[in-house]
Amino acid sequence: MTRDDDLKKLRELVKDIDFCMLTTTDEGGDLHSRPMSSNGDIDPNGDIWFFTNASSLKVSEIEKLPKVNVSFADPDNQRYVSVSGTAQLVRDKGKIDELWRPEFTIWFPKGKEDPEVALLRVSLEKAEYWDSPSSTIGYALSFVSSLVTGKEPDMGENRKVDLQ
Amino acid sequence: MTRDDDLKKLRELVKDIDFCMLTTTDEGGDLHSRPMSSNGDIDPNGDIWFFTNASSLKVSEIEKLPKVNVSFADPDNQRYVSVSGTAQLVRDKGKIDELWRPEFTIWFPKGKEDPEVALLRVSLEKAEYWDSPSSTIGYALSFVSSLVTGKEPDMGENRKVDLQ
Repeated sequence: MTRDDDLKKLRELVKDIDFCMLTTTDEGGDLHSRPMSSNGDIDPNGDIWFFTNASSLKVSEIEKLPKVNVSFADPDNQRYVSVSGTAQLVRDKGKIDELWRPEFTIWFPKGKEDPEVALLRVSLEKAEYWDSPSSTIGYALSFVSSLVTGKEPDMGENRKVDLQ
Repeated sequence: MTRDDDLKKLRELVKDIDFCMLTTTDEGGDLHSRPMSSNGDIDPNGDIWFFTNASSLKVSEIEKLPKVNVSFADPDNQRYVSVSGTAQLVRDKGKIDELWRPEFTIWFPKGKEDPEVALLRVSLEKAEYWDSPSSTIGYALSFVSSLVTGKEPDMGENRKVDLQ
């Protein structure tokens, strides 16, 4: 599979999973997750975009340690995706306008003009997924894919079953 | 809330979520997640137990960097739990016997006598959860709790809304 095929497959897998868990590492080395809405999208460049409060704790964690994981879980379909990537705070007004939806005022009551409204871009470096054709846990298999930006995919190492 | 209350609440939140995502850090600093079955249980001591292949990649990662995150996602109920903890490989035969279920032969075809069958114990150090009374994303709120082993809970810092 080419990188485009991998990306297409990944985008298909996550398109119905609005909320994922974003895992960051704090200064003490502890790993924290929190639910974030990706609107079910990984963009055609392989980036995942999240709205964030510019002064949130996770932003300060990411500025120190930008390596993150984004996991998508759809237990009803025994479908799981793990994305390893690098996160960056983006304050681009044009991008905010492009991605903003009116319902986001639930989290940002002052609307998108609020200077605290910013974006986190997670650039995919590697991804793995587990996709089962059946809802029975026992049949959950792992088909692992690798998405590497700027490096050759290391498929041999990553194509493995790891659901145990 | 006391630690026991926190733990009771957490156990209640995850009891119907069999599969969670276990995030580890590799030597290069990349974060990886994979689905793991906790059988919907955090035990009364605040430990999460997973069966694992003793020579799996995640075990070697954990031996070098034992800090992990375990995230539970129940999107239908807009319920999300993040557990930060320390993972350790446990080869105790008695514990393996206690936790083993016949259906695990799907992952360990040779059964529990296979010397490759081992346990990962994740000792909870901190937990956060987001639990919504409604299935509407817009009403998803964050009620954050802190579970600290051997340290005082730092409730002031952690009781916050972080779903943005």
